[in-house]
Amino acid sequence: MPKRVVVVGGGFGGLQVVRSLLNTLFAVTLIDRTNHHLFQPLLYQVATAALSPADIAVPLRGIVRGYSNTEILLDEVIGVQLEQRRVLCSRSGALEYDFLVLAPGTRYWYFGNDDWERCAPGLKSLADALEIRRRLLHAYEQAAIAPDLETARAWTTFVVVGGGPTGVEIAGALAEIGKHTMTKDFPMLDPRSIRIILIEASSRILPTFPPQLSAKAMAALEELGVEVRLSQRVIDVECDAVTLGSGEVILAHTTIWAAGNRAPAWLRTLGVPLDRMGRVIVERDCSVPGYPEVFVIGDAACFRDERRGELPALAPVALQQGSYVAHLLRRGIPLSKRPPFRYRDKGMLATIGRARAVAAFPGGIKLNGLLAWLLWAGVHIAFLIRFRNRVAVMTEWLWYYLTFQPRARLLIEMATGERAD
Amino acid sequence: MPKRVVVVGGGFGGLQVVRSLLNTLFAVTLIDRTNHHLFQPLLYQVATAALSPADIAVPLRGIVRGYSNTEILLDEVIGVQLEQRRVLCSRSGALEYDFLVLAPGTRYWYFGNDDWERCAPGLKSLADALEIRRRLLHAYEQAAIAPDLETARAWTTFVVVGGGPTGVEIAGALAEIGKHTMTKDFPMLDPRSIRIILIEASSRILPTFPPQLSAKAMAALEELGVEVRLSQRVIDVECDAVTLGSGEVILAHTTIWAAGNRAPAWLRTLGVPLDRMGRVIVERDCSVPGYPEVFVIGDAACFRDERRGELPALAPVALQQGSYVAHLLRRGIPLSKRPPFRYRDKGMLATIGRARAVAAFPGGIKLNGLLAWLLWAGVHIAFLIRFRNRVAVMTEWLWYYLTFQPRARLLIEMATGERAD
Repeated sequence: MPKRVVVVGGGFGGLQVVRSLLNTLFAVTLIDRTNHHLFQPLLYQVATAALSPADIAVPLRGIVRGYSNTEILLDEVIGVQLEQRRVLCSRSGALEYDFLVLAPGTRYWYFGNDDWERCAPGLKSLADALEIRRRLLHAYEQAAIAPDLETARAWTTFVVVGGGPTGVEIAGALAEIGKHTMTKDFPMLDPRSIRIILIEASSRILPTFPPQLSAKAMAALEELGVEVRLSQRVIDVECDAVTLGSGEVILAHTTIWAAGNRAPAWLRTLGVPLDRMGRVIVERDCSVPGYPEVFVIGDAACFRDERRGELPALAPVALQQGSYVAHLLRRGIPLSKRPPFRYRDKGMLATIGRARAVAAFPGGIKLNGLLAWLLWAGVHIAFLIRFRNRVAVMTEWLWYYLTFQPRARLLIEMATGERAD
Repeated sequence: MPKRVVVVGGGFGGLQVVRSLLNTLFAVTLIDRTNHHLFQPLLYQVATAALSPADIAVPLRGIVRGYSNTEILLDEVIGVQLEQRRVLCSRSGALEYDFLVLAPGTRYWYFGNDDWERCAPGLKSLADALEIRRRLLHAYEQAAIAPDLETARAWTTFVVVGGGPTGVEIAGALAEIGKHTMTKDFPMLDPRSIRIILIEASSRILPTFPPQLSAKAMAALEELGVEVRLSQRVIDVECDAVTLGSGEVILAHTTIWAAGNRAPAWLRTLGVPLDRMGRVIVERDCSVPGYPEVFVIGDAACFRDERRGELPALAPVALQQGSYVAHLLRRGIPLSKRPPFRYRDKGMLATIGRARAVAAFPGGIKLNGLLAWLLWAGVHIAFLIRFRNRVAVMTEWLWYYLTFQPRARLLIEMATGERAD
């Protein structure tokens, strides 16, 4: 009987494990809630109508097709029974495993205010991105037929909560689409009434980057016309207003949530220590304490490195952990002989608009401006090379950068969907 | 004061009128329920995951941008007051016009059984196409985890109602995606359990084409494994079964409606004679009898030509009528001096799968097989040239035809959507 490996989550980490085990004697089952792997770093471009869903997603079954040792299960995990070595799924019931790799990623976390989600969607899935794109396009259409200036202004005010890389990228893209695309599509609107407001709770944006790069990114955003509010907490979100700790009430119909992450609640069924974000505190070999056959990798793992402290929630960390765990499994290395996982820092990148980015590399090397942006574009295209979307994405970008006309600004009302407004 | 032209519908006909009036002194308002023009002949390719929405749709505001005499209104028409020269919209209220061009197209018609729509969606909009794509992909996923063969079989049985060009194209595409893509993505399924059933009420498919081409198309479909039921009426549609007049009950979770069209109900507010499909019976100049300033063009018009009887519901008819009406307006030709509209027949084309098509041209010229398909591909790419999707679509097709891996097979559950099953 082949050993059964169950992998939960088809993101960067989980898919890396599955790919590395394709030509082995393991029987691998990949469980995901969607049927596709998502290139999440570009998801904000779908939300802002620059790319189509198919440009950044690839069907999981297409990746493993032809490998008889691997199967895909479209299902939702609801718990794990560590002693019985079983994963519980909402549709398929219990699945037994010999080895288990958990790579479920994180969900947005509204600091306990779950009712905010309806008015301020996060950006984790293609469905999220399409919903944000729908709200964005719908908002401009509403502004165009608004009876007065004040009403129009509330429709063309966009609030982004959270100044990490995702929030910065969304805010930059919203500012550009507003300035270059929407003012031309909607000549009846006053360009000055289009406002993008980025709210960050700490004293600088991109708090995980070096301070100089935060300052560069801040300057770039402000040049694009983004209003950045630092050291501000959101204390209430409604569908037509956001209230800040300072007492300021921003009238806005479109709010995007890019603050606060939390690992899925079902990780609690493991019964092992979690950190304050609900992530599993893993051993040096990415395994769950006391269960050497169970691993947690990627954003849902809290991995503490002696030298650098907690590893950041980045794709390269998940990818490297995936390769590492697959290596342990392929070689059958017992717990006592496992070398600790070591993260090889590749640096950090964030992009702000069409031709600006900031980058920080190991050894204190920093980059910003066009050079950093070219690097950003190159890295992302190189990643996509492994799928086959490279040509399509390059064509889209070239088109967009030449014409400022994002092609996917299609307002698609779903046949069975309810409108949120 | 410039004369106000209101155009209802941004399909082939309506958009042609708007384009032809871009550089004139008319003040033009285009009203549409969506924000995009749709290249409807390829909509079935979005429904079957071969193309992405942005490949076949183009934002209306992008088309008219820079022309200050033209505005777009995202709204739904609910009626027309001919005497007062006003169009009534559900959001914007009443709009006055000097000239009115109605090009609203048709909706699917369930022969009075509106409850069938929930279980058998039609294919008119991008939202429809994405819903059908979702059902198609979801059905295979359900089949993969079905507890027994009979259940799996009901999930991999697809019923297409209506053997016109749309029904034939969908059935052919479903058969190919089943045979070449899904059997590889879902190795656990028995290929013989994948069934595509096409139901046509008349005695042959493509009833508007010459009989020999119907026979060729029929043979091509059967070669692809499609089961064609001729002279069969659907008497009941449920979400897990379709009942035919013969008494046959087909167990199928996925049914697509491509039979029966009807013009929108609000055309009745005109108070002029309609035909049995609810279409306005127009004069020889496409105008509404008694109202020379109001025109109806495209699928919602019943235009009777002396030589050929009723004009078919085809894109070329709508396009030519649009050019004709715009010409009358630009020249300000009074009713008494208008030459009758003459349709220049460009032929008819329908495609069946990857490299087969049938075509009929004026003068009795007929084509089928690869040559007809190359013509079909050429014609469609030439049409798309006017937008800028040509390169993208050609890349998609080339990829698909080389690999049989449609790229857009993404199962996206909408955040706010309900599932129909």
